[in-house]
Amino acid sequence: MLDKKGSVLTYVSSGCVKTTEGELPSRLKLILDNLQEVIMQYHPDQVAIEQVFVNINPKSTLLLGQARGAAICAAVLHNLECAEYTALQIKQAVVGNGHAKKEQVQEMVMRILSLTSSPSADAADALACAICHAHGGLGLGKISTAGYRMKRGRLV
Amino acid sequence: MLDKKGSVLTYVSSGCVKTTEGELPSRLKLILDNLQEVIMQYHPDQVAIEQVFVNINPKSTLLLGQARGAAICAAVLHNLECAEYTALQIKQAVVGNGHAKKEQVQEMVMRILSLTSSPSADAADALACAICHAHGGLGLGKISTAGYRMKRGRLV
Repeated sequence: MLDKKGSVLTYVSSGCVKTTEGELPSRLKLILDNLQEVIMQYHPDQVAIEQVFVNINPKSTLLLGQARGAAICAAVLHNLECAEYTALQIKQAVVGNGHAKKEQVQEMVMRILSLTSSPSADAADALACAICHAHGGLGLGKISTAGYRMKRGRLV
Repeated sequence: MLDKKGSVLTYVSSGCVKTTEGELPSRLKLILDNLQEVIMQYHPDQVAIEQVFVNINPKSTLLLGQARGAAICAAVLHNLECAEYTALQIKQAVVGNGHAKKEQVQEMVMRILSLTSSPSADAADALACAICHAHGGLGLGKISTAGYRMKRGRLV
């Protein structure tokens, strides 16, 4: 989670929700409850979520969809707007290169938020998504759209 | 929705939530809000949901997963247990044939619940899932497990 004052971004918190092995409904409840706790603790004004890839096997895609659905539900239950960005947009916004590696994303997240240690790769991804959103989804400067497809003003 | 008294099942209500064309978060919110309304109106004790197929394209699978995730969230938000059944189990329980056609499911749902008119195919599927659950997930009589794979006591 970030705080934005003018053009200054400040780190607030970050983390991962890890679900146990149990049945799907209780795992989704864990995601929902954990994210609702975070929302009630920090009262964010806006939420950003990464648009996921679907080039994995169908079972994983379905599972990922359900988990993502639960995460979005936590946001909409608190009437929070929920913006979506592709990995390409996020990397472009944070690193300046839509095909940047995980380590580069972690490095830039550390620099932008003046962190003294590197967040985990998953937490860095989430923070990068928030940074992308804080910069209007269009990065730290101009974004090249050459070679990308645009839909409703968004890179797809 | 069904009411079960002893071995007698009574129809309570059924319906479909149709989402509009908008952005994903608002569509998931519609599912969540509608199902929460139904839950608050009828106060069910248990929820059953169909395990979905994933042999469609990845984008549809992801979308279906997110919608299903929102539906399960509505149940778990009210601390309702949420049982899952495959289409095979449901058809086996209601029609006695795991590969029954949609029309046969509609016909049997009408008979079992003494309905005077046929519910829509989607509503019939949901009622069939509830009937399957009401009968302990194991159908109206004995269920043949020959040729099916069992996992934790469930057909998969």
